[in-house]
Amino acid sequence: MTKLGANRYGKQSVRLVRIVRGPVHRVRDLTVDISLEGAFDAAYTAGDNAPVVATDTMKNTVYALATEHLTGAIEPFAAALARHHAGAASVERATVSVREHAWEPLPTPAGPAPDAFRRSGGWTRTATAVADDGGVVISSGIEDLVVMKTSKSAFSGFPRDAYTTLPEVRDRILATRVTATWRNLDEPADWDAREATLLDTLLATFADQFSESVQQTIWIIANAMLEADPGIDDVSMRLPNLHHWIVDLSPFGQQSGDVFVATDQPYGLIEATVHRT
Amino acid sequence: MTKLGANRYGKQSVRLVRIVRGPVHRVRDLTVDISLEGAFDAAYTAGDNAPVVATDTMKNTVYALATEHLTGAIEPFAAALARHHAGAASVERATVSVREHAWEPLPTPAGPAPDAFRRSGGWTRTATAVADDGGVVISSGIEDLVVMKTSKSAFSGFPRDAYTTLPEVRDRILATRVTATWRNLDEPADWDAREATLLDTLLATFADQFSESVQQTIWIIANAMLEADPGIDDVSMRLPNLHHWIVDLSPFGQQSGDVFVATDQPYGLIEATVHRT
Amino acid sequence: MTKLGANRYGKQSVRLVRIVRGPVHRVRDLTVDISLEGAFDAAYTAGDNAPVVATDTMKNTVYALATEHLTGAIEPFAAALARHHAGAASVERATVSVREHAWEPLPTPAGPAPDAFRRSGGWTRTATAVADDGGVVISSGIEDLVVMKTSKSAFSGFPRDAYTTLPEVRDRILATRVTATWRNLDEPADWDAREATLLDTLLATFADQFSESVQQTIWIIANAMLEADPGIDDVSMRLPNLHHWIVDLSPFGQQSGDVFVATDQPYGLIEATVHRT
Amino acid sequence: MTKLGANRYGKQSVRLVRIVRGPVHRVRDLTVDISLEGAFDAAYTAGDNAPVVATDTMKNTVYALATEHLTGAIEPFAAALARHHAGAASVERATVSVREHAWEPLPTPAGPAPDAFRRSGGWTRTATAVADDGGVVISSGIEDLVVMKTSKSAFSGFPRDAYTTLPEVRDRILATRVTATWRNLDEPADWDAREATLLDTLLATFADQFSESVQQTIWIIANAMLEADPGIDDVSMRLPNLHHWIVDLSPFGQQSGDVFVATDQPYGLIEATVHRT
Repeated sequence: MTKLGANRYGKQSVRLVRIVRGPVHRVRDLTVDISLEGAFDAAYTAGDNAPVVATDTMKNTVYALATEHLTGAIEPFAAALARHHAGAASVERATVSVREHAWEPLPTPAGPAPDAFRRSGGWTRTATAVADDGGVVISSGIEDLVVMKTSKSAFSGFPRDAYTTLPEVRDRILATRVTATWRNLDEPADWDAREATLLDTLLATFADQFSESVQQTIWIIANAMLEADPGIDDVSMRLPNLHHWIVDLSPFGQQSGDVFVATDQPYGLIEATVHRT
Repeated sequence: MTKLGANRYGKQSVRLVRIVRGPVHRVRDLTVDISLEGAFDAAYTAGDNAPVVATDTMKNTVYALATEHLTGAIEPFAAALARHHAGAASVERATVSVREHAWEPLPTPAGPAPDAFRRSGGWTRTATAVADDGGVVISSGIEDLVVMKTSKSAFSGFPRDAYTTLPEVRDRILATRVTATWRNLDEPADWDAREATLLDTLLATFADQFSESVQQTIWIIANAMLEADPGIDDVSMRLPNLHHWIVDLSPFGQQSGDVFVATDQPYGLIEATVHRT
Repeated sequence: MTKLGANRYGKQSVRLVRIVRGPVHRVRDLTVDISLEGAFDAAYTAGDNAPVVATDTMKNTVYALATEHLTGAIEPFAAALARHHAGAASVERATVSVREHAWEPLPTPAGPAPDAFRRSGGWTRTATAVADDGGVVISSGIEDLVVMKTSKSAFSGFPRDAYTTLPEVRDRILATRVTATWRNLDEPADWDAREATLLDTLLATFADQFSESVQQTIWIIANAMLEADPGIDDVSMRLPNLHHWIVDLSPFGQQSGDVFVATDQPYGLIEATVHRT
Repeated sequence: MTKLGANRYGKQSVRLVRIVRGPVHRVRDLTVDISLEGAFDAAYTAGDNAPVVATDTMKNTVYALATEHLTGAIEPFAAALARHHAGAASVERATVSVREHAWEPLPTPAGPAPDAFRRSGGWTRTATAVADDGGVVISSGIEDLVVMKTSKSAFSGFPRDAYTTLPEVRDRILATRVTATWRNLDEPADWDAREATLLDTLLATFADQFSESVQQTIWIIANAMLEADPGIDDVSMRLPNLHHWIVDLSPFGQQSGDVFVATDQPYGLIEATVHRT
């Protein structure tokens, strides 16, 4: 005998661009993922699609709800989509994740262009809304933020066994691609201001801190962020360690230490959540 | 006040190639991920690395244990690595995931070459071992297996609301990139034979079944696999729906129906686990 | 004063899947690129689009010509598309490149499935047709063929200067991702047979040859291919050197030599054409 | 009889990070490609590596020459590497391409951090130096600059045939990922200033111009750049047309026109060079 266990389904990578027109245009450029959990057993065990909202319908809702609900930050848009889908008869929980790809006006001699833009690099803003009978929980975050410390980073005091060859270092490059998310305790009037405060805190703390390890860096940054805004409940960070290895220049009669090879793999990966008690 | 919550760390994407030499060579080509959970709090909260096995050391173990432990299937190798890391003082749980990139001998007029190979396409074999005080649990699987049904696939009877535009279809293309994993109840003498049986069952069931939905396809395939081998406890599948849309050829005076545009995004995604009761 | 120099335009990455139905189905899965050269100056210098075939129209031709012209190998389909576009008033040369993503029937206990398939790995077949007033030149090829020699490969006798640290080796791994193209002198009745002969020759020669360098390997393979089929005029190869570095196992008390780390970058890249005189 | 035709070889994707230390650090992060042409026939036809500079040696030169030559812009560094390699006995022409991945200081309450950085998005700066007996020719450019016009873009007046279904539009989104290169007639004292002038011109012209086509956009931008700096001889642009299709919102009782789906493929591709006469 067998039984259906955990399951979910939805639509991934729905690409939406909305041009908000006016004297000055604004570009909203999102990728939306929707995932539903609920009473879908009949679809699996009996081939009965009565409870199955088509993923094509989910895609349509992204476009159809944009005009009314994508007027400010991505958090309320994600929440509106999650509430909408949680309202379907068979659905117990709807999870909607939104990534926003930022665009900024092009510089011209006459000032910022009203109708021409460039894709901003730097990072991607994210929001996830989870809706069920109990309401909606909204998380926010950033990803694809690549940062580097060229001093004040060490790694030493770790255990040494038969397979340890890494030397202790009190001065190394620390580079990572930051993914950070935080759970909102409230829905602030100004989502952008919250995000700006938390990102500024993250960056300044990363810059200032003496890092004994990626683990300690996560702890210190997350604590600074939790202190910076009482409206968030936890901070989760996922930090790959993008290794930069010193190139041995001694064969060429040069001093080593300032020239590195940047590598993609393998990479360390450190993940942790810090929450209020 | 704050507290460290869930956390883990490790080394990702360790690339290992081992040439097993003899009259006929064999190429083993793996990517290994290692992740540890345990009593690492001091590293976070006090910058004390005493409990932190360096991820560089983890990488070394992949190479150092290969000669002795990578002699057969990837499952025992993953288990040996997981057991090794679970033995460290601070570690409570070690998870080791291995993907094997297959190579096959080149055909020559004189038969298969003993020392020249091509990368086999088709799919990637996977194994994950999780070791803790209670022992080791080994899962196996496949990924990157792209399959298509050109008949016997339908999607109809789904609910229609204000945002539903998808027509019902009783004949569509169904294409997906299969990720499947199963938990082993035992350690079989012949891991390859188990994998072959389960993959054959998966493919034949996918081919034979009339599919009312991706959901039903998962159910039927997973049940067939659980029946094919009593040594596994569950089957989890993750099936993206790689949409192929009919091209409207009527502007060119042709009948539509056999010509499609293959799309990458958006895509449906259906995930479920089926287990024995 | 300025002048328009070399220019071309077209549509890239048109994805076409055609299901050829019958007692047994066949899947044709192509990516098509079209590029035109000609008298387009007015579009640049005067904003006059009268000579500019829309790239959307090019896309439509891929779908519209498939039913009639995609009945055999990709070469005649590429040629038909190239001839079609070379016929436009403003066009002097049309280049059409086609890659075919292979699918093979799924194995079932009852034999190969008539209507279920898996994507074949291994390599991608390519064809390029260039049409102008003088007719059509058709090239064929393969790409994404990843191969490895585990013996009979050396690299020694190269010059040593102040920046040379690479040791000479008489036994190394040679791995590469083959891109090969050849220009057809005729249009054979059986394009598949020609491709099979040339690919078999390429693989067997790669396997058999003792390689002093990637350069020598190209020369020997290309000559073997030119000898295998008098219907081709030249062979061009593009071989990245996918380096596998020996892992030093001496810190772990083991012999080094059979365990390697596979790397992506940097990589050597050797490109050459061999032609009949 | 066969003959070796066009051939070249080299090292691709050499990753170099240099930290220039001082009161304020500076991060230089480059990817370097080196390719050589010359008298390498013996390597192909006789397996004689005497003329073959090892690609590993090329890699070493990137690191060894950085301290002395990577002190300013990437153009002089590319030129130094090209000159070095053109000096080898067997080499007739050396081509060195450099891409610089920009990093900027992290903002902190105390001002820009002296030793912490983030990867700047926006675009990548490029330089290519080609050295032979006649000297060195240096080209510069940018790539990965993604821009969009939300008005002042049209496409109409193109020819219509049996395969044309695209409607004429006088108001469309124009989005592209700019690759632009220009050949330098001289070696300016301030490479950064030249690049800034040309990039500013490119962006402002893209913003201001009414675009009848991507072709016209290239012509107008290239002319503006050639006018902005007499020290360059030509401008080459490669502009993919990243299509944004209007989503039909009429099924949901909404007006269409401001909501789009961003697509990756297929895409138009327009390439042209404009040069001084």
